[in-house]
Amino acid sequence: MLGGTEGRRRRGRQRMRWLDGITDSMDFDEEFLETKEQLQKLQDGNHLLFQQVPMVEIDGMKLVQTRSILHYIADKHHLFGKDLKERTLIDMYVEGTLDLLELLIMHPFLKPDDQQKEVANMAQKAIIRYFPVFEKVLRGHGQRFLVGNQLSLADIILLQTILALEEKIPNILSAFPHLQEYTVKISNIPTIKKFLEPGSKKKPPPDDIYVRTVYNIFMP
Amino acid sequence: MLGGTEGRRRRGRQRMRWLDGITDSMDFDEEFLETKEQLQKLQDGNHLLFQQVPMVEIDGMKLVQTRSILHYIADKHHLFGKDLKERTLIDMYVEGTLDLLELLIMHPFLKPDDQQKEVANMAQKAIIRYFPVFEKVLRGHGQRFLVGNQLSLADIILLQTILALEEKIPNILSAFPHLQEYTVKISNIPTIKKFLEPGSKKKPPPDDIYVRTVYNIFMP
Repeated sequence: MLGGTEGRRRRGRQRMRWLDGITDSMDFDEEFLETKEQLQKLQDGNHLLFQQVPMVEIDGMKLVQTRSILHYIADKHHLFGKDLKERTLIDMYVEGTLDLLELLIMHPFLKPDDQQKEVANMAQKAIIRYFPVFEKVLRGHGQRFLVGNQLSLADIILLQTILALEEKIPNILSAFPHLQEYTVKISNIPTIKKFLEPGSKKKPPPDDIYVRTVYNIFMP
Repeated sequence: MLGGTEGRRRRGRQRMRWLDGITDSMDFDEEFLETKEQLQKLQDGNHLLFQQVPMVEIDGMKLVQTRSILHYIADKHHLFGKDLKERTLIDMYVEGTLDLLELLIMHPFLKPDDQQKEVANMAQKAIIRYFPVFEKVLRGHGQRFLVGNQLSLADIILLQTILALEEKIPNILSAFPHLQEYTVKISNIPTIKKFLEPGSKKKPPPDDIYVRTVYNIFMP
């Protein structure tokens, strides 16, 4: 869902398909940059506050900065908890998970020699630093979601990160039974399930063409 | 105020000195890591959710992740605007400015040869990408603060970034008259003025001892 800042522009016309609680969803259109000229045109037209993508057009705003986009949509769709303490817990879980997800997003751009080393590094970070925290949270309260017994941005970002990691390291959750069960349950929420099925707008794992396109657009 | 994730731990006992609107402030105590063992002790005691600093003890919570700490304090002290649209604008300004500030925070850890090149890179980013945005905002609405005519997290982070940049590049604002005036005005808000004066808890620019301490603590 995130896509990082590389070569992608999402544009939500009027309605935006997203997760609203468990049953609602919003429609959205996406446009992906393929050339330097497309980026230049967006920049010249003052569509990008800091001259960078991603950018989301929504509710009369042109949102930029990945976190700001996430925060706005989470606020709008009640994915930030019921009070400031829950919000802060969600925010900490999101920020920690994003540190891990950012490694995954940058991974395809490493030199081939470094890519395998980095898989080991990511696996270690996930298994030692991040997953034990969430395993303990889930084991502790026995609920379906990380915070406040309802779906939040923390669940969305953690699910995305787990699924992306599993593409590289299939058994990454083997020591985390609660996270395994959690992943299955969150993946089966109808709106999310639909997004994970073939034919949806979910992006495939980045391939060589994607990497080359990003370099073509952003290299001087 | 931020200090990045390197070797610093802030601990707020009961009251925390911070910016609350314009006149209020909160007291805080700070503890800085000086040895590997101090970090290990915090980790072993389960004081750090993701085993990392900075950590702030406040309101019965142990907050981690720089952004989550900022967000909590901003929410608590009404530094996030009056509605979701203002909040989102503040969030975008903060995220953009943090991208610049992060370059500054990492700068002392570059190799000596790379440090000078990076100063040029930061100056260019500031002058081409970030400062024109804020100059235009201030010129456009003619107000004292960036968003909603009142102090917000966006002002705090932008001021911090400008002051840190000016330590390296004294004339960095020369082409931005509104930002010059803004910097003087925000710096003269009594609570901020006091924080910027000698003898306050404001950190001096990072020196060799700081860099060596960070390496000693965090290198394997």
